[in-house]
Amino acid sequence: MFEVLERDGLARIGVLETPHGRVTTPALLPVVNPNQPIVSPRDLASRFRAEILITNAYILGKGTLRETVLRDGVHRLLDFPGAVMTDSGAFQSHVYGDVEVTNAQVIEFQKAIGSDLGTMLDLFSEPEHTLDRAAADVDETIRRAKEAAELKGGLALVGAVQGALHEDLRERCAREVSSLDIAVAAIGGVVPLMESYRFRDLVRVIVASKKGLDPSKPVHLFGAGHPLVFPLAALLGCDLFDSAAYAKYARDGRMLFPDGTRHASEVRDSGCACPVCSSRPMAEIAVDERLLAEHNLHVSFAAVREVRRAIAAGDLWELVERRARAHPALLDALRELRRHNDFLEEYEPLSRPGAMYYVGPETAHRPILHRYRRRLQERYSPSPARGLLALAEGSRPYSDRYAAVVAKALAAADVHPVVKSLWGPVPLELDHVWPLSQSLIPDSPDPEALEAAEVFFRQWAAGAGYALGMLWEGAETIEELRAAAPGPRQVDWNLLRVRATADLQFGRGAADALLRGQVTYVVSKNTGKVRNVLADGEHVLSLRAEDGFFSLKAAGARRLKVAFPPPRLRIVVDADAVPFHREGKNVFAKFVKDADSDLRPADEALVVSPGDELCAVARAAMNRREMLAFRRGVAAYVREGVPSLGSA
Amino acid sequence: MFEVLERDGLARIGVLETPHGRVTTPALLPVVNPNQPIVSPRDLASRFRAEILITNAYILGKGTLRETVLRDGVHRLLDFPGAVMTDSGAFQSHVYGDVEVTNAQVIEFQKAIGSDLGTMLDLFSEPEHTLDRAAADVDETIRRAKEAAELKGGLALVGAVQGALHEDLRERCAREVSSLDIAVAAIGGVVPLMESYRFRDLVRVIVASKKGLDPSKPVHLFGAGHPLVFPLAALLGCDLFDSAAYAKYARDGRMLFPDGTRHASEVRDSGCACPVCSSRPMAEIAVDERLLAEHNLHVSFAAVREVRRAIAAGDLWELVERRARAHPALLDALRELRRHNDFLEEYEPLSRPGAMYYVGPETAHRPILHRYRRRLQERYSPSPARGLLALAEGSRPYSDRYAAVVAKALAAADVHPVVKSLWGPVPLELDHVWPLSQSLIPDSPDPEALEAAEVFFRQWAAGAGYALGMLWEGAETIEELRAAAPGPRQVDWNLLRVRATADLQFGRGAADALLRGQVTYVVSKNTGKVRNVLADGEHVLSLRAEDGFFSLKAAGARRLKVAFPPPRLRIVVDADAVPFHREGKNVFAKFVKDADSDLRPADEALVVSPGDELCAVARAAMNRREMLAFRRGVAAYVREGVPSLGSA
Repeated sequence: MFEVLERDGLARIGVLETPHGRVTTPALLPVVNPNQPIVSPRDLASRFRAEILITNAYILGKGTLRETVLRDGVHRLLDFPGAVMTDSGAFQSHVYGDVEVTNAQVIEFQKAIGSDLGTMLDLFSEPEHTLDRAAADVDETIRRAKEAAELKGGLALVGAVQGALHEDLRERCAREVSSLDIAVAAIGGVVPLMESYRFRDLVRVIVASKKGLDPSKPVHLFGAGHPLVFPLAALLGCDLFDSAAYAKYARDGRMLFPDGTRHASEVRDSGCACPVCSSRPMAEIAVDERLLAEHNLHVSFAAVREVRRAIAAGDLWELVERRARAHPALLDALRELRRHNDFLEEYEPLSRPGAMYYVGPETAHRPILHRYRRRLQERYSPSPARGLLALAEGSRPYSDRYAAVVAKALAAADVHPVVKSLWGPVPLELDHVWPLSQSLIPDSPDPEALEAAEVFFRQWAAGAGYALGMLWEGAETIEELRAAAPGPRQVDWNLLRVRATADLQFGRGAADALLRGQVTYVVSKNTGKVRNVLADGEHVLSLRAEDGFFSLKAAGARRLKVAFPPPRLRIVVDADAVPFHREGKNVFAKFVKDADSDLRPADEALVVSPGDELCAVARAAMNRREMLAFRRGVAAYVREGVPSLGSA
Repeated sequence: MFEVLERDGLARIGVLETPHGRVTTPALLPVVNPNQPIVSPRDLASRFRAEILITNAYILGKGTLRETVLRDGVHRLLDFPGAVMTDSGAFQSHVYGDVEVTNAQVIEFQKAIGSDLGTMLDLFSEPEHTLDRAAADVDETIRRAKEAAELKGGLALVGAVQGALHEDLRERCAREVSSLDIAVAAIGGVVPLMESYRFRDLVRVIVASKKGLDPSKPVHLFGAGHPLVFPLAALLGCDLFDSAAYAKYARDGRMLFPDGTRHASEVRDSGCACPVCSSRPMAEIAVDERLLAEHNLHVSFAAVREVRRAIAAGDLWELVERRARAHPALLDALRELRRHNDFLEEYEPLSRPGAMYYVGPETAHRPILHRYRRRLQERYSPSPARGLLALAEGSRPYSDRYAAVVAKALAAADVHPVVKSLWGPVPLELDHVWPLSQSLIPDSPDPEALEAAEVFFRQWAAGAGYALGMLWEGAETIEELRAAAPGPRQVDWNLLRVRATADLQFGRGAADALLRGQVTYVVSKNTGKVRNVLADGEHVLSLRAEDGFFSLKAAGARRLKVAFPPPRLRIVVDADAVPFHREGKNVFAKFVKDADSDLRPADEALVVSPGDELCAVARAAMNRREMLAFRRGVAAYVREGVPSLGSA
């Protein structure tokens, strides 16, 4: 039912199939009040390109439309050609304290009216609920989810995750509910957090839920209708949002913007490019509820599309960091993210297109840089030099001239140059690797960033065995270095680069395995940089210009397979699939039996049979958790099939 | 010709009158290529609501259209009903090295074709020009400006400011050119800075130019057509922008966005709400130059309107701080602003509507907070207490309960509570003053901000005579304080507040003058806060709920006038205007003879005759420089006329 087409960390562009068409995610579901829709569902489809909407089964079941909707079905009642999701009444229990309907009744009703997605009746955990109370409600929500899964018949079920602010409960509820036969997992109980701008708590709740959720299920964030939160929620892996805000705010004379809410009466020029604002004077818009609702819809749909654009471009983090400046509470949420880096990092790709922009002290704490620093510690073998030449960020050798000076210093003295970058220490031979090679930083970064750079550097240097007395600052000290140094040293710069990159990318020891024997290079005529690496005449690696990492060749993969025991670097596929991969066919998730938990999206991987025979080299599209969960989609793109030894 | 209607610091919403209608500023002037307009001028007026456009007189004068435009005039040629500004060819000299026309010829030609605004032929200073070369070019530019002013006849002239990156030259050129009879001052030579994202240099150039410019003249920033720079440029006092970018970028298949530029071919969902993007698939837009140009226009016009919205709402600083996260070079520009705080502060209002949002470590350096910290040092009399109780930001007494604890501590010990806020130290009796009373900060601010708060606090405490040993941290130490304290102390909280606020607002000594005699209060029944202050039965001050400052009453003004010698707090008006102000009429700038250079927009002021007789109490709308420069508009809104003693 759900297939991921593109991803950027936990965020993804996907397609959700329904009986009433395909829905591209992230998607916004406008909430339609069946009694008085301010913008007709027909208009939502045609003018706003809504592929799905949401309405309330509880209200339909209690009101005067009950008989009509049971007779005609919800699509005909609303006159909407796309998919219709229905909600159950759990939110009404939050508002009114209780609802007069059972879980079983709500499920049966949604089946009867033809909902494309029908929601169970979960118990709404309020943020302030104690652990005991929330645990009891989670138990009951899980019981009802099971009941709903039994009763659902052909209904695509929306299972709910509750648990208040208790992270363990959220994770447990998510795990249990998403293990059932549900089509969508919905994170509930978050409206009170969003209403009071408790975005940091919202981050905690979403992350805890995502940890438990089956990653192959699309995730709905219940009640998230303000464009302010779309980028952050999508970044954390939410795929569906529903907006009652467009109508509710219009009723109060308020306008939604990507950076907040404003009273229409206080706005003279909205500064909005939407069809409403660009064609009419504010005085007319401000007093017209329908125009306000249309503005709100335009802005909300555009905000969701902007998230999709950012996912496709790989710059959703930048968007989140920019948007965080719309409200101090969003900034708090941004600063909370680093607490969850170990989890977020699992979903980070090896690299992203384009340059990394420094936009504040938070940038250095992105999970992809957290990984860089960790891998540097775990995988990079410190140079055997007797000291480190710590270069300031700005002195990175963009120019050949500067590089020559550094090379001279290297040759003259037994020191190793390391850039003290804002992202973490960068030994000069890793300077070409993304994002270290491609990043834009301000001329005068803030003190937090500079201090963090210092801390990153010192921690790494100490861990790598360099004492304080072995650190030299800046390029000005070259003369001093010469004086203090034990003597000239020969450096094969190309070899250093290849070795360091291979270890960083595949693990410590990879360089030894890949480069065993006589090493030769093919060098680019244009850039003078290494392009292909051969060992004993075998083409083992190709360097990618776009991110400075290697593409792995079959010969290289064979060497790595010998050096690294299972499960390292492996994707284990079903025996039946092996012949296809040997011929170069991609690895589909449903045929993956297991995989290295250290693999990340875009990592190079060895595709092996259950008996650990190498059958292809591939570029992963998912991490292990995802490969094991998804029944649809490509788990890894095969670069090169490896014929069986028998057939060779 | 130019009148300011609203302002936010140096930024302003104004009206520029032309023979072809009124132009609301900030305004965007689309550049129209007369030979092949991609969007017709008629469409620009009707569909994009353009009130003014710009085209090139040099190109018109050289090309095949020369005879037509001389015969029909530029408006008929372009078929545009609004105002037309023409450029002179100076930019062409930057591109091609030279132009085959003289300043006098260009001026005559622009007169002949009926330009509403015609530009002199200045010499384009390249950023890398040395001081000597730039100085010679500035001399020639000034000479030509004078020549143009002599030749212009009825033409509204655009004078140009050059001077490369040399701040003194920029200021001198600006001063000389804007002292002539010009309608608009244009800052030139900045396109190379914007093309290479040298926004920090752009800030320096604009500030240096603004220092020299007559503040009553509208300022055009030549070649600024990317929405990325509109908020920053407007914040620094630029009123007009011209965009060739909408068409040039469209020709290259690029789309403008408020946060940058993207290749249309790489964008699947634009995430833009404009009429083009919200009604058509990207695949269609991406290959259609005209649609791209329309998108670019929608986005650019909306960006200018957004700036107007922000000026009217008083939150342009927030917009600039948010937008700075679109590119590291913009962040550098934002961090540059604090270097110019002494100048920027002169234009800052006393307070702004709404809360101040903390959006990064740069917020604390806004000029309005720079002023607060300076005034605190200069105007606030430190409490005679024997120590300071330094309260952390979060412990600010939002709740009565907390306030009671602090009051107890106060009563028990001889210490004075001061919040160590991110904005600077806040003695508790100033806690109700904007923005200290109304600000939103994150729960976990970044270290730069916390460190700055510490530095602000220590510097002030030391300056106020508190030694380190006299500082107590936090509210936890109340018991400790009791033990160490010399004894209970009576505190009249209301009196402390009124005194501290009066001194901060009007200057040290104001409280003594205003409160001489028996002080009584009228207290609000709703809030329990002081509303009116009476001294010996005279109503001297009213406290404003919206910003915590005072409105000055006539009785208070009389007391201040005695206490503070001229020119302090005064606006000196023409003798002829005195009777009108005595009757409560507003002060128009053209009748202002002089004013206190410490007056700021929204400050309370004494309106006096040339002989220093008090004739009204007013709220300033301008600072001194502006009052003396403007010939139009209100310099101060009179609250209360003061009848002459003779007539009383």
